[in-house]
Amino acid sequence: MTLGLQLDIQKYDCNLVLSPKIANSIQDDIPLIYVVTATYQRLVQRAELTRLSNAFRLVKRLHWIVVEPDGQISLNIQKLLNSSGINFTYFAQETNPSDQKNAGIGWIRTNHNPAVQAVLRYTKKLSAWPVAFSGRRKYETPIVENGKVVRFSAWNTHRKFPIDMAGFAINVKVLWKYHPRFTGMKDFHNGFEETHFLEQCCTVDDIEPRADNCTKILVWHTKTKKPTIDKIDHNVPKLEV
Amino acid sequence: MTLGLQLDIQKYDCNLVLSPKIANSIQDDIPLIYVVTATYQRLVQRAELTRLSNAFRLVKRLHWIVVEPDGQISLNIQKLLNSSGINFTYFAQETNPSDQKNAGIGWIRTNHNPAVQAVLRYTKKLSAWPVAFSGRRKYETPIVENGKVVRFSAWNTHRKFPIDMAGFAINVKVLWKYHPRFTGMKDFHNGFEETHFLEQCCTVDDIEPRADNCTKILVWHTKTKKPTIDKIDHNVPKLEV
Repeated sequence: MTLGLQLDIQKYDCNLVLSPKIANSIQDDIPLIYVVTATYQRLVQRAELTRLSNAFRLVKRLHWIVVEPDGQISLNIQKLLNSSGINFTYFAQETNPSDQKNAGIGWIRTNHNPAVQAVLRYTKKLSAWPVAFSGRRKYETPIVENGKVVRFSAWNTHRKFPIDMAGFAINVKVLWKYHPRFTGMKDFHNGFEETHFLEQCCTVDDIEPRADNCTKILVWHTKTKKPTIDKIDHNVPKLEV
Repeated sequence: MTLGLQLDIQKYDCNLVLSPKIANSIQDDIPLIYVVTATYQRLVQRAELTRLSNAFRLVKRLHWIVVEPDGQISLNIQKLLNSSGINFTYFAQETNPSDQKNAGIGWIRTNHNPAVQAVLRYTKKLSAWPVAFSGRRKYETPIVENGKVVRFSAWNTHRKFPIDMAGFAINVKVLWKYHPRFTGMKDFHNGFEETHFLEQCCTVDDIEPRADNCTKILVWHTKTKKPTIDKIDHNVPKLEV
């Protein structure tokens, strides 16, 4: 079982919604992929989650964990998840706002490619791959020599793991093994979430390079512009955006 | 057969790439959907087309016509289309730059929802539905009374068809019927492409309102930010973004 991004999901204290078909997916024998999306309520939220769901619907055996940051889940998003046909868990959690939220925003901005499933599904411990448009570069990538990651081309390579949150997956067993140590995650400052998280459980030597030895871009860290809205027409039906 | 957006595809004078499996799709008996995407080469092109392809892969019997504006198709995009499994036609065409390009850029920025297929596939002549974030509004929409479109909530309702290019589909038979008249399409000024196009072949009375009588948002006209890129690291492998 593989995870894109870890959040502290043990401590949810709010509404929790599970997809109706979780049971169906248990018997398949390919490893389950968990994707964690930390989202937040805003104008483009449903557009962004629809786009992600389009990609995730193409991936077999994926479980989507969607987390709202401010203690409140939305019926609008719940309906979207229900109708997507994707196995999901949806809940809200009070958080220390900056770190988890920043991580979540970044993750949700990423364009997931179904090809990614081929890259991350069979992760033994930690796998990594290039991500376009992250770290204010055309791409950040592990540099691979003879099948091993030897260094990184990335923002701030003084970080032990200079990897964007969309650029790695871990086998979920790693989480169980190191679980108590992960409780300290919340105090990281911006840009250090990934490295602090990974430093607790992995070494650079553990990295399995993916995407043809890190020679292919399969993930883009794009951002959606906030829409410009000039005026509100009160003489129209209220539609849920 | 239904079309999202018409372009002057008869006059292509450049490379033309067809998907290998066009023949396979002929025998199905549900109406074929054509989607025309006018794209252009830039940093986020593959990210955007990947996202669109994720949505289109979920739609049965869709034919994707992808047009480059400047006389040059790209191997990068051709590979993307080939590996998507979607039936496609890919070609480049010299165009009068502004109108067709603007129309194309707008279209490609739109988040397509597979639910849209249910809305547009059985279009008799012209169907329309709400689009979020277009016309500098939260949404533009036809206003429906007793199953008929009576007016619009949109930018510049002095236009006969104040509809975003992502907000309508026509039955492709309309194109054959009025074909000679469509040759004048290129001189429209910005914001008038849709109305000038539709005025040549349809009346407002023809509009079949979709998306539950225009009460649901299934399409969002979002824009992707141009990535900020600070520096080029020359000491890394060159990856195709």
